[in-house]
Amino acid sequence: MDEILKEALKLAVPSDEEVQRARLAELELKKRLEPFNVEFLLVGSYARNTWIRGNLEIDVFVLFSPELSKKELEEKIIQLGKQVFEKYELRYAEHPYVHGEILGVDFDLVPCYKVESADRIISAVDRTPFHHEWLKERVKGKENDIRLLKLFLKANGIYGAEYRVRGFSGYLCELLIVFYGSFIECLRNARSWTRRTVLDPKKGEVRNGEFFFVVDPVDDRRNVAANLSLDNLGKFVHLARLFFERPSLDFFIRKERKVPDNAIREAMGIRGTEIFALEFERPDIVEDNLYPQLERAGRKIYEMLRREGFMPLRFTYFASEKCYLLFECQVKELSRITRRLGPEFEDYENSKNFISKERIFEPFLEGGRWWAFEFRKHTKPEEAVADFAISNYQALGKNVGLKIREGFRILKGEEVLSAPILDKLADFLGIRI
Amino acid sequence: MDEILKEALKLAVPSDEEVQRARLAELELKKRLEPFNVEFLLVGSYARNTWIRGNLEIDVFVLFSPELSKKELEEKIIQLGKQVFEKYELRYAEHPYVHGEILGVDFDLVPCYKVESADRIISAVDRTPFHHEWLKERVKGKENDIRLLKLFLKANGIYGAEYRVRGFSGYLCELLIVFYGSFIECLRNARSWTRRTVLDPKKGEVRNGEFFFVVDPVDDRRNVAANLSLDNLGKFVHLARLFFERPSLDFFIRKERKVPDNAIREAMGIRGTEIFALEFERPDIVEDNLYPQLERAGRKIYEMLRREGFMPLRFTYFASEKCYLLFECQVKELSRITRRLGPEFEDYENSKNFISKERIFEPFLEGGRWWAFEFRKHTKPEEAVADFAISNYQALGKNVGLKIREGFRILKGEEVLSAPILDKLADFLGIRI
Repeated sequence: MDEILKEALKLAVPSDEEVQRARLAELELKKRLEPFNVEFLLVGSYARNTWIRGNLEIDVFVLFSPELSKKELEEKIIQLGKQVFEKYELRYAEHPYVHGEILGVDFDLVPCYKVESADRIISAVDRTPFHHEWLKERVKGKENDIRLLKLFLKANGIYGAEYRVRGFSGYLCELLIVFYGSFIECLRNARSWTRRTVLDPKKGEVRNGEFFFVVDPVDDRRNVAANLSLDNLGKFVHLARLFFERPSLDFFIRKERKVPDNAIREAMGIRGTEIFALEFERPDIVEDNLYPQLERAGRKIYEMLRREGFMPLRFTYFASEKCYLLFECQVKELSRITRRLGPEFEDYENSKNFISKERIFEPFLEGGRWWAFEFRKHTKPEEAVADFAISNYQALGKNVGLKIREGFRILKGEEVLSAPILDKLADFLGIRI
Repeated sequence: MDEILKEALKLAVPSDEEVQRARLAELELKKRLEPFNVEFLLVGSYARNTWIRGNLEIDVFVLFSPELSKKELEEKIIQLGKQVFEKYELRYAEHPYVHGEILGVDFDLVPCYKVESADRIISAVDRTPFHHEWLKERVKGKENDIRLLKLFLKANGIYGAEYRVRGFSGYLCELLIVFYGSFIECLRNARSWTRRTVLDPKKGEVRNGEFFFVVDPVDDRRNVAANLSLDNLGKFVHLARLFFERPSLDFFIRKERKVPDNAIREAMGIRGTEIFALEFERPDIVEDNLYPQLERAGRKIYEMLRREGFMPLRFTYFASEKCYLLFECQVKELSRITRRLGPEFEDYENSKNFISKERIFEPFLEGGRWWAFEFRKHTKPEEAVADFAISNYQALGKNVGLKIREGFRILKGEEVLSAPILDKLADFLGIRI
């Protein structure tokens, strides 16, 4: 185990060259900011020396008076960014911020309000300086354990609080290491976490609650793990158990799956399911807005498929150049006829109406109710999806719905293999590497 | 309406010739019984002059002392039958009885105990003399209304309390006419019967209860309509409404459907379902024992089909030379792969076992639980049924199960048309005439 962690550290800790480059860039930034006489603060993983090798990005928070409007903040930070960076780019979270480069190092220049305490914050980013304040002394000596945890999570696809990942944020990683003292103690304990575990780093206590909750030491109503999905929590618990059962450096190395077309084609044949994708243009919105919409759209369609009897197995979604909603159904084709529930025989008026509808086949009584044979609109799942997408686009998320309304393609069978989604497809089908 | 009832009566009332023949046979029977010095009683529809044309059968109850054993009763009635009829046959209800013919008229010679009151009866048939006693004066003047009701029910397939029919017994018909006074009043009121209607002819009152109940005037705990199925009750209510909406002689004439093969073949094509039958030897048991077993077998298989995802529409059953269980499914073929529920991720031991099973595809987390892709045993409904019939024959009714165990055939598609079940099949599919 020690040997493995030593090897993992080599992967997690930045090289001397990277650190050197960072220091130079930091100095250069400070020099450039001097003439503007702004109050600023280095926060985040660079400020606390907890970034993982090759993932250097320096967060600089510029503090403004709460008397300024959001618009003024925005103007000022853009103004500043323009003059500090040769090349800059405006990015958006809750507010806009400026992304730029100095001496080959990435910077985020983020405006925030300088408030007295964490319960007076105006926007979520205003909390960050307080997070930094709480952590900066407490992480001392534990930096490399934090790096190990981040690398472990990253290698397994659950590092990051963004909706695309729904994993562990950097801040959450640091709190966990502060709470448990080391990477190995964190993993040892994670093996028995449940969906009701509550961790309270400030009080140093573990208790049970309604759902997995890591109490923010600067605001005890806030769940630092709010964006962590239940299944990614489960995945982490599972990985922690596996790691203790059979420790290996593999847990720190991202598996590159390069699944050949043929393996997927063969899996499709073995499964005997109907696999198809809805492909449409990617709307021009940020990922944290796009992904929840894709999930909503996928879920709505999945529910329709279930309701209509196509027995869907699973759905998934992803966005690259285009967007894809992917479905797998256990039924390729249903009968044209189905049965439809009518009124109880006692209900004269409704029975009469129900029976008198024009139908090829005669209604019948079962369990004291009338039933009729009726034709279903669609016998194939992909046809049902195409029809649903056209008539229910409003239910599929605002921007996603509108893009679907503009047009979509259904990719089925071999066509799915032609889309740039092979890795996702391999995951979706549970193909082993 | 009057005109229609007048025409219907012509169909319901026995011809003079039939009545004449009955009287002669009755006299002949009495003459033949005389030397044996037994106490007997004419009961049933002949005794009360309420049999329908062409359905003459004379019920003769021979009364014995309650001191005799059932076995002695049986021996005595066989002895008597042998000497009274040239040709006789032993039949079985709760006890054996003798069926014979005199002058071309059918007789049932039934042994019963002579008890003081209906609450001291030893076997169910002992109640019949009390029924006769209660009805004989009350039906006077209403005989033809009873005949109309019986014919109406018979023409629509719901006359008879036997399990094959699950309709209205003759005794129930007579009580209904006594209760309502006439055929037309009975039908008028039946339009608003519900599954909770309770009719009490002795008290002359209608009330609500837990289910449709016609109180036996000689035993108020007994439901005379116990064998009437909910759906046949509904059918009668529906027919009564139709009859008042558009009276016609057609309600008194059995529809002979002679559906051509081609109509069924065409219907099968339109429906796009999987229609198949399980065919097996008919066990040598009475119908009232056979039919409940067939229903049970059909229901068990139907439930299995539903559980396994084949989306059955309906099932039915019938016995002619052979027995048939008939099924129609909305799914002709399912995927080989399905998903199987595993433990919650917190459950270490079970998760470990679940995940470590050898499987082609990887398990996954969803909703905080483990799931796995597994192969289903059968992808086609008829294969699932064949397998279920072999391995679960004990669940399919005692005698029916044993016959199925001895062997069966699955008839599918065109083969179903070759079985002697075309009329049943046409009904089952709701093919209109």
